[in-house]
Amino acid sequence: MDDSDTRRGMPAAHRRLADEHAAAGWAGNGDRFGVAGAILGGDLCLIWSDELFATSGLPMAELTRARPIFDRMRTQLMGGQFLDVLESARGWDGLTTDQRVARARTVIRYKSAKYTIEHPLLIGAAAAGVTAPDRDALSTYGLDLGEAFQLRDDLLGVFGDPAHTGKPAGDDLREGKRTVLVALTLDQASSSTAALFDRLLGAPDLDEPGVGELRATITASGASSRVEQMILDLSASARTALHTTTGLTEQGREALDALIDVSTARTT
Amino acid sequence: MDDSDTRRGMPAAHRRLADEHAAAGWAGNGDRFGVAGAILGGDLCLIWSDELFATSGLPMAELTRARPIFDRMRTQLMGGQFLDVLESARGWDGLTTDQRVARARTVIRYKSAKYTIEHPLLIGAAAAGVTAPDRDALSTYGLDLGEAFQLRDDLLGVFGDPAHTGKPAGDDLREGKRTVLVALTLDQASSSTAALFDRLLGAPDLDEPGVGELRATITASGASSRVEQMILDLSASARTALHTTTGLTEQGREALDALIDVSTARTT
Repeated sequence: MDDSDTRRGMPAAHRRLADEHAAAGWAGNGDRFGVAGAILGGDLCLIWSDELFATSGLPMAELTRARPIFDRMRTQLMGGQFLDVLESARGWDGLTTDQRVARARTVIRYKSAKYTIEHPLLIGAAAAGVTAPDRDALSTYGLDLGEAFQLRDDLLGVFGDPAHTGKPAGDDLREGKRTVLVALTLDQASSSTAALFDRLLGAPDLDEPGVGELRATITASGASSRVEQMILDLSASARTALHTTTGLTEQGREALDALIDVSTARTT
Repeated sequence: MDDSDTRRGMPAAHRRLADEHAAAGWAGNGDRFGVAGAILGGDLCLIWSDELFATSGLPMAELTRARPIFDRMRTQLMGGQFLDVLESARGWDGLTTDQRVARARTVIRYKSAKYTIEHPLLIGAAAAGVTAPDRDALSTYGLDLGEAFQLRDDLLGVFGDPAHTGKPAGDDLREGKRTVLVALTLDQASSSTAALFDRLLGAPDLDEPGVGELRATITASGASSRVEQMILDLSASARTALHTTTGLTEQGREALDALIDVSTARTT
């Protein structure tokens, strides 16, 4: 349902299907046709993910150990996605900066950190029979790195080069995403800054000059630096947790260590 | 995405969520909020169906035998649903009655017969270790009964009593569903009948008198009787196939025999 979801020039499924509907001169509303087809395509991918898991060829004992985490991951992801939609609808009126940051971080945690890093790691760990203390350490590693990764993604969503990110410049601003970065920008903001954000954040027709104005304001507020510092702190915490593990191979630990840098690098 | 999908007074999920959005005075488009939440609710049910299958407690050997059918069922269902959407968009212009009936039956087969009866039966049969000849017979039984069930549903969608069906009267007509019943009505139709259907079938504001007019035309065309005959023939074929099985218990066979009557009864 995200109209701006275009990656590297390839149209989103619902757009592509709506275009085909128009080209063929079919009956009915092409946008509805596109959305219906895209939903079904998503459902197909969802059931295939499960089919791939079940038919991966891993020994049954390993699959059985990993299954509860696989199931929990998918249920929590749907909750996280809904939380994201809900937060956009509820808005931030009357909340303190701390409350706004806490809400944005909760969405990040359920929608991104658990799904992108923590749970996939724990699925592998459970299958491999990793000990409980190591699993706890991997959980901390995954949550912290997952959050750092998403904070980097939020910065790239505002400041990133479209040639690298594959997203239009300032995409997150046009979408009106309520990120930690935005919460910190609005912290102790002057009334003129607050008014600027009220006017431009989430405006579907936000143009390049508007994006530039918001970017300059975010930078001047010090919010970018504060988010950069959060990324450093979370990366350090992830690294510390990783190095408390005792059962990983040296190669495995090195790979997860390198993943910290790759996931939080300034240009991905 | 089906706005008319209201059962026994309970609003569809996307409507209910849109209402909550409006009641809370939240930001943004309430309809989009409702659709996003409903999609995620559907995704949740989809993954839970798989979780229930995998954690049903059936012996692993049985689950492993049943799994390929479970997977095929879900993939084919998505294809069937898309086929339904596609058929509505493509329309029937320039097709013969035979071609229209064939298309409507293909949709029924993939969207309904396989998913509602054939595959669930084969999943159980595979888990129970039923022999190949019996599985083939159960497949025929399931496809024929599934099609008969859907043809009955199509009749009820036009002629059914809302108090029994839980759907508004003439719901399928308002939705413009291209069913076997409609194809047979348009077969050798006079130009005035064809014009009536062009005007009223799929009209979102189709009212009671309009529904009555379409019903009378369908009955007068003989299409209802032809569909009733198809239901009888398919039921007979399902029953014949059922009684060629050799490995079912008497109780199992009786239950499946009774299911034929229940699934195709005139008032369900």
